[in-house]
Amino acid sequence: MKLMITGGGGFVGSRLARALLARGSLAGERIDRLVLSDIAPPPADLLADARVEARTGALLSQTDALREESFDGVFHLASAVSGECEADFELGLRSNLDSTRALLDALRAQVEAGGKVPRLVFSSSVAVFGPDAAVPMPRVVADATLPAPQTSYGTQKLICEHLVADYTRKGYIDGRAARLMTVTVRPGRPNGAASSFFSGIIREPLAGVESICPVSPDVSHPVSSPQRTVEGLIAVFEASREAFGGRTALNLPALNVRVSEMLDALEQVAGSAVRARVRFERDERIAGIVANWPTGASAARAARLGLLPHDHFADIVRQYIDDCRARPDADQTLKGMR
Amino acid sequence: MKLMITGGGGFVGSRLARALLARGSLAGERIDRLVLSDIAPPPADLLADARVEARTGALLSQTDALREESFDGVFHLASAVSGECEADFELGLRSNLDSTRALLDALRAQVEAGGKVPRLVFSSSVAVFGPDAAVPMPRVVADATLPAPQTSYGTQKLICEHLVADYTRKGYIDGRAARLMTVTVRPGRPNGAASSFFSGIIREPLAGVESICPVSPDVSHPVSSPQRTVEGLIAVFEASREAFGGRTALNLPALNVRVSEMLDALEQVAGSAVRARVRFERDERIAGIVANWPTGASAARAARLGLLPHDHFADIVRQYIDDCRARPDADQTLKGMR
Repeated sequence: MKLMITGGGGFVGSRLARALLARGSLAGERIDRLVLSDIAPPPADLLADARVEARTGALLSQTDALREESFDGVFHLASAVSGECEADFELGLRSNLDSTRALLDALRAQVEAGGKVPRLVFSSSVAVFGPDAAVPMPRVVADATLPAPQTSYGTQKLICEHLVADYTRKGYIDGRAARLMTVTVRPGRPNGAASSFFSGIIREPLAGVESICPVSPDVSHPVSSPQRTVEGLIAVFEASREAFGGRTALNLPALNVRVSEMLDALEQVAGSAVRARVRFERDERIAGIVANWPTGASAARAARLGLLPHDHFADIVRQYIDDCRARPDADQTLKGMR
Repeated sequence: MKLMITGGGGFVGSRLARALLARGSLAGERIDRLVLSDIAPPPADLLADARVEARTGALLSQTDALREESFDGVFHLASAVSGECEADFELGLRSNLDSTRALLDALRAQVEAGGKVPRLVFSSSVAVFGPDAAVPMPRVVADATLPAPQTSYGTQKLICEHLVADYTRKGYIDGRAARLMTVTVRPGRPNGAASSFFSGIIREPLAGVESICPVSPDVSHPVSSPQRTVEGLIAVFEASREAFGGRTALNLPALNVRVSEMLDALEQVAGSAVRARVRFERDERIAGIVANWPTGASAARAARLGLLPHDHFADIVRQYIDDCRARPDADQTLKGMR
């Protein structure tokens, strides 16, 4: 089978690619070819795999050519992040909305030309939820909570959920939208996401660097490890339509955790000197965005697919440390741990 | 003030234009100019008003020029209807999604150039609601019911609701989305809407013509008269942001009525010979679409704005007959009433 991952060079995308290549098959079919589309080339280990083909450039510059090509499956992860979309409205519309529309239309063109209907997993986001004066947000958002996005990023993700649902209804794709929780711990440098600090307050202290937490330690948030997120995307791809249940997006599993609990877990795993590298300094812009995010999420439909969150944030910290040790070539460093 | 109605030559649009011209003011400001944009020219009585400027052509062909022009208010009603969008997927995307996006971007360009933020009322639809395997639809859909559209038309309306909300959040417009119920009785010829028969089974018998009802007499549906719909659009425009409440779309008032009750009302107003002109002949395509529509709607937020539905469908039939008598020039006819 021939698969594509948009955003295949990114944090979640490259991990998903590694997981797929290691499995060798998906939904019972052998993976012969894995196209990784991203604005930056994928990591060297992925490029070294004979099944991998990298396509570097904006997705929107690739979609015309995609009309002439068929895929058995697509994981559509490519996206501008929330902070970028707030800072640059046009960028968000182009990267998140126009790109998705063009991708779906390219897949539709193939089907209209007689090709096989591709299966597609769309990575939506918990950012579709938010409080609105007319619609109070529950403390814990469920699969069927009414979304009321409070950012352009969340709006664009929600719109794409509905495009995926309608292209599916029309038989142009077999689409499934899954809402990712905030994935932590991300390696590398902080990115433009308002949620970037949820990784920074773990990653930087472990690297021996001071980190600033821009929100109160009482802030609670639904998070997930990279590994559980990748497992979730694969399970959603492999689910039958009946098991997925309808065309409405589902929540991936969340560990609902407070910032203070994250830091307790960091201390438990890495020691108090590491935790002491986190300093609280409120950033009104970030805190304002985060205040409109849900403090927790439930994921009943994902649970029925066998997907569960980690029980303890310490497990997520340990997974990050193991990841760093396994890949010392990457810009992931551990310094000054006990 | 300078206003625009997209779809201003259409059924609801032309009635809204007449109501606005008759009032002479909106939200406390005098109406100096009323631009009516539509694919067809507006009725002659509107063209004869010195305040009216007609712009004939697809909205998408007009939006580039709109970037150079500012408006105090816009009623965005232009839309391809549900049956058309099911038959021609591209048409729906272009007419309902791309046109709305281009309109919003034109208004945004004005604001970014230092212009006044225009108020905008978007006519969404009860068609955003539907049943999904993952999300059972309540019998009566409320303002905050989770939409799960079952048509491309409903999907596009829902997407535009969220675009309007996000452009509003960013300060590019002061937008309010109001979900229209099925507006009946429409004059003229049947159109491509799957809901067309909700008017046909009243209009045709009153004109002395046989009418076919493609669904069971037990089908229940939320409807509204043209007059109440126009009143609703105006009240939503005039509401303060606080009174509108948030940025989530609201339902306009609905009279929840069964087909059999509609025909009882027709008989009560016009006699049994008129009612006898309706014949039941199931159309699977139409019945399939209608089966996914809500059987009723509530409108608590609209009620707080003072908006209420008619109490009895007979009042809606009488309104249609009065309309026909007042405008014998139009293609509205009454024949063979008792």
